[in-house]
Amino acid sequence: MPVGVLGASGYVGQELLRLLAGHPGAAVAFATAETAAGERIDGLELVRADDAPLAAVEVVFSALPHGVSARYVRAARAAGKRVVDLSADFRLSPEAVYGLTELTRPRIADADLVANPGCYPTAALIALIPLAQRGLIDPSREVVIDAASGVTGAGRNPKREFLFGEVAEDYRAYALGNQHRHLPELKATLARESGFTGDLVFTPHLLPVKRGILETIHVPLTRVLDEAMALGIYDAAYGDEPCIRVVRGAPPSLKDVVYRNRVALGVAAVANVRRPRLTVIAAIDNLVKGAAGQAVQNLNVMLGLPETAGLAC
Amino acid sequence: MPVGVLGASGYVGQELLRLLAGHPGAAVAFATAETAAGERIDGLELVRADDAPLAAVEVVFSALPHGVSARYVRAARAAGKRVVDLSADFRLSPEAVYGLTELTRPRIADADLVANPGCYPTAALIALIPLAQRGLIDPSREVVIDAASGVTGAGRNPKREFLFGEVAEDYRAYALGNQHRHLPELKATLARESGFTGDLVFTPHLLPVKRGILETIHVPLTRVLDEAMALGIYDAAYGDEPCIRVVRGAPPSLKDVVYRNRVALGVAAVANVRRPRLTVIAAIDNLVKGAAGQAVQNLNVMLGLPETAGLAC
Amino acid sequence: MPVGVLGASGYVGQELLRLLAGHPGAAVAFATAETAAGERIDGLELVRADDAPLAAVEVVFSALPHGVSARYVRAARAAGKRVVDLSADFRLSPEAVYGLTELTRPRIADADLVANPGCYPTAALIALIPLAQRGLIDPSREVVIDAASGVTGAGRNPKREFLFGEVAEDYRAYALGNQHRHLPELKATLARESGFTGDLVFTPHLLPVKRGILETIHVPLTRVLDEAMALGIYDAAYGDEPCIRVVRGAPPSLKDVVYRNRVALGVAAVANVRRPRLTVIAAIDNLVKGAAGQAVQNLNVMLGLPETAGLAC
Amino acid sequence: MPVGVLGASGYVGQELLRLLAGHPGAAVAFATAETAAGERIDGLELVRADDAPLAAVEVVFSALPHGVSARYVRAARAAGKRVVDLSADFRLSPEAVYGLTELTRPRIADADLVANPGCYPTAALIALIPLAQRGLIDPSREVVIDAASGVTGAGRNPKREFLFGEVAEDYRAYALGNQHRHLPELKATLARESGFTGDLVFTPHLLPVKRGILETIHVPLTRVLDEAMALGIYDAAYGDEPCIRVVRGAPPSLKDVVYRNRVALGVAAVANVRRPRLTVIAAIDNLVKGAAGQAVQNLNVMLGLPETAGLAC
Repeated sequence: MPVGVLGASGYVGQELLRLLAGHPGAAVAFATAETAAGERIDGLELVRADDAPLAAVEVVFSALPHGVSARYVRAARAAGKRVVDLSADFRLSPEAVYGLTELTRPRIADADLVANPGCYPTAALIALIPLAQRGLIDPSREVVIDAASGVTGAGRNPKREFLFGEVAEDYRAYALGNQHRHLPELKATLARESGFTGDLVFTPHLLPVKRGILETIHVPLTRVLDEAMALGIYDAAYGDEPCIRVVRGAPPSLKDVVYRNRVALGVAAVANVRRPRLTVIAAIDNLVKGAAGQAVQNLNVMLGLPETAGLAC
Repeated sequence: MPVGVLGASGYVGQELLRLLAGHPGAAVAFATAETAAGERIDGLELVRADDAPLAAVEVVFSALPHGVSARYVRAARAAGKRVVDLSADFRLSPEAVYGLTELTRPRIADADLVANPGCYPTAALIALIPLAQRGLIDPSREVVIDAASGVTGAGRNPKREFLFGEVAEDYRAYALGNQHRHLPELKATLARESGFTGDLVFTPHLLPVKRGILETIHVPLTRVLDEAMALGIYDAAYGDEPCIRVVRGAPPSLKDVVYRNRVALGVAAVANVRRPRLTVIAAIDNLVKGAAGQAVQNLNVMLGLPETAGLAC
Repeated sequence: MPVGVLGASGYVGQELLRLLAGHPGAAVAFATAETAAGERIDGLELVRADDAPLAAVEVVFSALPHGVSARYVRAARAAGKRVVDLSADFRLSPEAVYGLTELTRPRIADADLVANPGCYPTAALIALIPLAQRGLIDPSREVVIDAASGVTGAGRNPKREFLFGEVAEDYRAYALGNQHRHLPELKATLARESGFTGDLVFTPHLLPVKRGILETIHVPLTRVLDEAMALGIYDAAYGDEPCIRVVRGAPPSLKDVVYRNRVALGVAAVANVRRPRLTVIAAIDNLVKGAAGQAVQNLNVMLGLPETAGLAC
Repeated sequence: MPVGVLGASGYVGQELLRLLAGHPGAAVAFATAETAAGERIDGLELVRADDAPLAAVEVVFSALPHGVSARYVRAARAAGKRVVDLSADFRLSPEAVYGLTELTRPRIADADLVANPGCYPTAALIALIPLAQRGLIDPSREVVIDAASGVTGAGRNPKREFLFGEVAEDYRAYALGNQHRHLPELKATLARESGFTGDLVFTPHLLPVKRGILETIHVPLTRVLDEAMALGIYDAAYGDEPCIRVVRGAPPSLKDVVYRNRVALGVAAVANVRRPRLTVIAAIDNLVKGAAGQAVQNLNVMLGLPETAGLAC
């Protein structure tokens, strides 16, 4: 099955090429880049996005920047191609199916345009939806999410703030006060999939690591849940999911998920507070389950292939 | 003024020696270590704690491990020496003055035994007490603190989990569910200094950096505070403090505080939530303001020296 | 094909399990550990080495420590099992075939005991042997090798010098003055495979990275070689090798080889010197081509499987 | 004594401001930046270099880029100001005194223009000159220098190759084959100060650390030197130097020198080679003794102040 990759020179595009190179049922027929056009990656010459030979492929991935992607996605759709868009351009649009595989699998199978979720929402939604669907989250108190991401999440364009000399040995919060652009995606999806419309406080942080996201999610509960009960809920929701790992004991950390298309979940009941609370840890690789890996997982669903083809979960 | 350092081979003890070497009014007369006894640091031969020549000094610092320190502190007190104990052994004890300098300065000046605060509580208390004293924290909702610390906070004893091969490129939460041993110290001090007894949820994380703590503190408010108002409160509380920096604009990060005896504070009002909320960022160097630096600051207060003598704030 | 892994809790043992889990023709029937005996890795319960069910397997890998491995290797041989020993215990022994796959492949195919090479010698030998075999290395001047390794090369036992707090932001040489235990292996193999017996100066360094070795190898030449000629020699020697990559342009770096069973080679002729010189860069992943990956490559040769089965080269 | 800093927004300029802020005999009267003009650092408003109030200062430091610096240095000289130029623009020029303090101190005292040495040459020259002056380096064999530098050595302009996502967990050689622009400076100075004109092979590497340079210097000897003899030579040359540390035992590493204006030297005689050889390790902080610290040291010499004023050596 020939596929094309729009935007192959960034970290997400490169990860797509790496994953597709090992995929048993897909072959990359073209890959695009702008300043790197003409260079070769593993024998494939990069072409400009405007020169992409759409006719040569069945499915197009777009890892183009937000705001740029939409135009190329529409061109691919106009050429009759099925598309997985990894940008944010269609995540809130009714034109696309939201591609959080474990939640929207049946809709993905038939979709012509899949909007691949953002990295932060992927982890948070997998953690929150089973609790929200069961009415366990107290809407009168805020859900607090502190999320920390590796630097590849900021892309590969050179900016001073992401130089090694700035990031190493540092750690910082950004987009404080609910200003992150992923928050509307997270809230809208949570409402649509679970009906939960309570308040969220979402604060991302920049970690001095290359890849990985860890979210510490503080959930106010409507009733007491001990750890066994909470794990039981996740087991019920995800026990058959190949790409979700519910972890007993020590909570998951980045090393449990990097280079894998996996969400790892761990839980702890909070002691010494007057009202019931659960803390959930959700970890993913921002470039895999948070981007390129989930895009391949969605491709597999679209094509009726085994869902983990080409993926280590 | 001759001083002694009990427990000089760990990260905190080493930082004490580094700071005291540059101190204009103190000279290290002895330093102790157990397995490293007999070795020399900058010309000073390390002796065993049991062989410490207490008579040679006026003030004793103890950077011995929790549980071990108390015995040696009592011996130093019995020999008539004033003591700054950096362990947790006296932090909740009425025998000692709690040495959070900016809060308890008058009591420190006359103290014979100062219990130097824990690193996590230092940052959290500096951030929370001005808000709590003014009745701004809503006790009906939880204060959520997600704190991240560099690895030197875990000490210098070799343990597999702190090897470079385990920590680099990783990030993890620990002591989930309000299990960290610093929490009682934090709650008791907050209650004593401000009267606040509402619930806290405290979750520490391990960062792949050598030093520094950043705490993201989510505060439910009793009334709306915009950022200017919140900064004004901190300015009023700390405007004259040489070691507290209230930061406008981008919130402080580790690089603003490492190798300094400084607490840096930043704030953000939280948008898109139904009830008023403030997020406060508090950053310190765990080895300096979180341990050895604050101990020197307390020494300066005890001796009537300029409070920042020997310290970069 | 059932195989067993002696010493599965260290970094090399873990990497073996990771690679064998994805191997199409091998299944791990047992894995051993001492303090971690009883724990499970991916469903497999670790047993003590003395309890290893040798009868259940066809081939045994030993990733036990140097000095410990020999006894267990002999026991496995006595039980009639073929063995790949990743320790240093048999590397200089006539009992074993030295398993530098690209050099000794025919002997490996029939071997009952393969001594898997050390990580530093693997990179150096692949770089030097083609030049030495052609008489291009001037024996009257010293070959100087400065090698730098990631920390996993030092193993997973907790030692203070390998704590994150010691290694991060540091870089150091060790075993200066030709004192590294890999040097006799390197010299003996180079002499045996190429006849070269000139002097080597080998200096290892510790890098603040998890994995990877980069060797900067300074070769005095018997005649002028420009870069094209040098690359041509490597192409001739290794052009058909799936796990050796001869790199044009920018020399290879760690990121070209980590998580791959690959040696990457680059060259530069040295300007502004009176006699001809070549600098060769050789990069490997110390845990893969420098240990577990090459062991699997050797297994594949022993079993007549495709040589890269289960390996990304 | 009022001083000015041209080029204050890069890593070297920032380090200069940090050191001068703690200097007892100098005060920064202006600091320049281009894109950051108008911003404030510790209360000082950055102005454009063309607007620098030269009349307000006695001494000007230039940390402007190579090629840009010369014009501003000449303007400052034309205004009658003494200048320390940290760029490469005057390092090979007879107009300037080469400011390797320990070697050229008497000339610096009277100089109006001091060319501050490059970071790599500083470490190499301090290591090589005492051996060369004594005729101990065999000119018939090459001196091989493998040097590794932290990323701040590459400056603070955003380039993709220096992003955290590219540098972390990587290590690479660059400017292979004697192509580094520091080599002519190193060779010319070595010839001038010691008469040595033998061949050098110099290969820099990029380390995943923020600061620090470690050079592994392989010296062919004209006669046997054991370690005690070699250390004795360095003691004789540098025993009274406050900023040079000759280290016995384990060779120096980056952590011995970072944030200090220090060269640390260690030695090892090379075993198992036919002709005598010494390996010297030289470590500095590239931003301190390799740039801003040495510039302050030179300022102190120029002004007749204590040489380590404002410096931790």
